[in-house]
Amino acid sequence: MAMKRALLIALALLVASPATASRERATELADPKPSVDAPRRIVVSLAESDPARANAVFSNVINIQEFYGPDRVELAIVLYGPGVRHVLKGDSQVAERVASLRAYDITFIACGNTLESMGRPHDDLLDGVEVVKNGLPEIVEKVLSGWVHLKP
Amino acid sequence: MAMKRALLIALALLVASPATASRERATELADPKPSVDAPRRIVVSLAESDPARANAVFSNVINIQEFYGPDRVELAIVLYGPGVRHVLKGDSQVAERVASLRAYDITFIACGNTLESMGRPHDDLLDGVEVVKNGLPEIVEKVLSGWVHLKP
Amino acid sequence: MAMKRALLIALALLVASPATASRERATELADPKPSVDAPRRIVVSLAESDPARANAVFSNVINIQEFYGPDRVELAIVLYGPGVRHVLKGDSQVAERVASLRAYDITFIACGNTLESMGRPHDDLLDGVEVVKNGLPEIVEKVLSGWVHLKP
Repeated sequence: MAMKRALLIALALLVASPATASRERATELADPKPSVDAPRRIVVSLAESDPARANAVFSNVINIQEFYGPDRVELAIVLYGPGVRHVLKGDSQVAERVASLRAYDITFIACGNTLESMGRPHDDLLDGVEVVKNGLPEIVEKVLSGWVHLKP
Repeated sequence: MAMKRALLIALALLVASPATASRERATELADPKPSVDAPRRIVVSLAESDPARANAVFSNVINIQEFYGPDRVELAIVLYGPGVRHVLKGDSQVAERVASLRAYDITFIACGNTLESMGRPHDDLLDGVEVVKNGLPEIVEKVLSGWVHLKP
Repeated sequence: MAMKRALLIALALLVASPATASRERATELADPKPSVDAPRRIVVSLAESDPARANAVFSNVINIQEFYGPDRVELAIVLYGPGVRHVLKGDSQVAERVASLRAYDITFIACGNTLESMGRPHDDLLDGVEVVKNGLPEIVEKVLSGWVHLKP
């Protein structure tokens, strides 16, 4: 009997604790809800050369993927201006992290305009990094195709 | 007669002065116009820890509210990364200002992910601050629901 | 015969070189495609006082115009907060560049709110710079009218 009572108390504590410890409310998902067939599409831009900043942005991207689930979100990172250094062989201090994010199906897109102005050939890019003529119009066209743009 | 002439001149100056002193043109409102039933919905993000930056963003928000009128705009501030400090008891240097904005019906939403990585419980948040699991998807879903996102 | 072979090799190299030197893929344009009748409309914001930053943003804008072609894109730069200095006579260190961009049909829009808080009359603005009551709602209304907002 004492056992049963202790169990009931433990159970009550378990149920009550989220309410007292957490105020968290769920984010209301917009319609149509993200699904495997129609994943959320999010384009993130990175324009600064600081590796700490790159790492922060990469963590944001991974957290977004965790939130939706990898099958329900498509993520692309557009790098332009000083931000392209993070995807340049030799220059990048976050090359391993880029490879790790690529393994999680995160797409990296570098600005060709920036590379040209730096005099860097496309072959200097890390493996699997895409190049477009100009990074900003890539973002604009993605937004007009339904992607949401974040510059975290 | 001299009186009448002086009055006319004064009147002419009154009419002319806005044209010479100001070039201001009105912002063209998009359709549907903001109304009490369908207010503009604007989500502002704050990701930096600098109190001066927080104060600048808060001023932006108040100015936006003034522009539309409090009944015709709904404003939410999402705080994530180093920006959450502004809504943390003890850490915040702008706690009074947060309370004042809350009194003006501005909503504050903190990123639960950030709090977790800082090891801070939700109870450390200032009164009335909401928490979601992750700040960035909250912004994404708001944008897909018709909110406009600004990172001023 | 040796001549013909040399020519064929030269031709093969010419054809092959773009494939080895460049990974560039074309940016997929959203529907409706930008045209003279329905140009892309892009609003860029500038809120920092650093002239180097202003120059970087101006280069971004020019590159965007080059990408679409001047007839297929409408570009406006909204300046607010410390960013308004770039369009103030006397204060601006980039006045010639502003004039040059204006000659390329780039529109400059200053935040009246900021000018007021600085105690600066509208006549202090560089030639041809527009003023609105508040810069941020100008951006919001443009976004709701189909413009894409970038803060590069």
